[in-house]
Amino acid sequence: MPRIAYLGPEGTFTEQAVCRLLADSTATGLNTAELIPAESVAAALDAVRSGERDAACVPIENSVEGSVTSTMDALADGAPLVAVAETMLPVRFDILVREGTRAEDVRTITSHPHALAQVRRWLEVHLPGAAQSATTSTSAAAVAVRDGQADAAVCSPLAAERYGLSVLAGQVADIEDAVTRFLLVRRPGAVPPPTGADRTTVVVVTGDAIGSLARVLNEFALRGVNLTRIESRPIKGSFGEYRFFLDFAGHVAQAHVGEALAALRRHCQDVRFLGSFPRADEGGPSGSDEAFTAAAEWLAEIRSGGRA
Amino acid sequence: MPRIAYLGPEGTFTEQAVCRLLADSTATGLNTAELIPAESVAAALDAVRSGERDAACVPIENSVEGSVTSTMDALADGAPLVAVAETMLPVRFDILVREGTRAEDVRTITSHPHALAQVRRWLEVHLPGAAQSATTSTSAAAVAVRDGQADAAVCSPLAAERYGLSVLAGQVADIEDAVTRFLLVRRPGAVPPPTGADRTTVVVVTGDAIGSLARVLNEFALRGVNLTRIESRPIKGSFGEYRFFLDFAGHVAQAHVGEALAALRRHCQDVRFLGSFPRADEGGPSGSDEAFTAAAEWLAEIRSGGRA
Repeated sequence: MPRIAYLGPEGTFTEQAVCRLLADSTATGLNTAELIPAESVAAALDAVRSGERDAACVPIENSVEGSVTSTMDALADGAPLVAVAETMLPVRFDILVREGTRAEDVRTITSHPHALAQVRRWLEVHLPGAAQSATTSTSAAAVAVRDGQADAAVCSPLAAERYGLSVLAGQVADIEDAVTRFLLVRRPGAVPPPTGADRTTVVVVTGDAIGSLARVLNEFALRGVNLTRIESRPIKGSFGEYRFFLDFAGHVAQAHVGEALAALRRHCQDVRFLGSFPRADEGGPSGSDEAFTAAAEWLAEIRSGGRA
Repeated sequence: MPRIAYLGPEGTFTEQAVCRLLADSTATGLNTAELIPAESVAAALDAVRSGERDAACVPIENSVEGSVTSTMDALADGAPLVAVAETMLPVRFDILVREGTRAEDVRTITSHPHALAQVRRWLEVHLPGAAQSATTSTSAAAVAVRDGQADAAVCSPLAAERYGLSVLAGQVADIEDAVTRFLLVRRPGAVPPPTGADRTTVVVVTGDAIGSLARVLNEFALRGVNLTRIESRPIKGSFGEYRFFLDFAGHVAQAHVGEALAALRRHCQDVRFLGSFPRADEGGPSGSDEAFTAAAEWLAEIRSGGRA
């Protein structure tokens, strides 16, 4: 049975994400798997690199518990890994308590600092007197409540059943429709086939000449490739040097995507492919190869003397 | 006396940053000031917006304790604020203990999760047996050690004197030359004058048409403006819509920078100016206006009939 590492401990949003990825077995080719929590994103990825695990599920955008920048750095450094699936989870927080605890009994509330920050306004209104403390994860907060070290925890819905707690209040996030995106990554191998609505992600190192990033984006724009995300990250150990994380609609098997990537390869210092996989959002279809195919046929006819 | 909010509590890297900014009084116009810790980046900025504080010091890039993405969102939303100065601090961690504690006595070690992550390899080698726990800040870890709740803390160098602790080991960060950047922000007012080596920062919302970001970057590239950072952030409450945080060399008072910003204003949905201020790094001078000035003079002569 394949073994999948995820950012633990049990009951985190990342466990919820990996469960959803496995339920959609066509996306992953991993119908059943053993789920094993990892201490950090870096540890989860390194366990895949070493072969100890077959895949890892990690947050990549807008995460509650993981530092997403650490995920990006961990994917860009070290032996190559590629994403084969993504999923998105609404950031939903519940206030969990031991059974029988009422709101007026809550003197202390605990969670990961990022989670506390995302329910700050709700707490100000509904539990203004409760003292706040920090844990390393939302699950650790649930454990603290179960063990009587705090009265209430801010957690993912999954944590209630996992740790035998009651829901004092549900859906308390200040921003109602925030979403976190997760990737399932493996060692390089067969790329999942195009579905017509895919996303591709790469890391690019350009020279620091003026206009070098504009040139990269022009290569995409000229071929009708729609960017969905861009982020520059300082290259570790050399402040001032940057690499760019780019997500865009389309699949590496498509002609217009492939031609854009080949162009980057020609004029960038480094291009690392981080995967093509089905999109989890309603962001619309991949761009079309139709015009590229027609133009290639036209060129072939010209070259063979069949037309002018 | 002006009052400056910073991401607290006392002894954090942000306090160290604001002390450095005040020492360089020409950069800030704030020779002496009262420093008041704030609970979060958002709280620090809101205190400036409301007039309760005169300025705030917050981490903006590569931070250890603050979530930097939360700083960016807090600057882009709400009433406008502008940065008037920046400073950079090396990310230096020391292991702090109560006086007399030896390495072999350390059974428990505590800090902010981001700080523990950045000394992970050092701890594996030097304190492999110590149990780790999390606090909300590196300063809270120093307090925990002082109060006997843990044997060692991973802290900024400032925390040792602040909390009366001893240095068991200095400079233990896994990456030696990591740097965090901080901004000093105020309510909009006079822009600091150009120094010849400045940075300007803006937030831009483009339409989601293919090539809209490439068009933005081309406006910079065509005028010789050198980007130093770019990041897309989802706009809160509408996943899939993005705004772009752009840092670049130069000052809004310069012709080539002003012309580029005016071009963005013409074809972007929104452009928010977040400040022009002296660069804290050795990133080189602002671009030159020389060619712009000569061309403007030439055009004026043409228009007046003075030449052709």
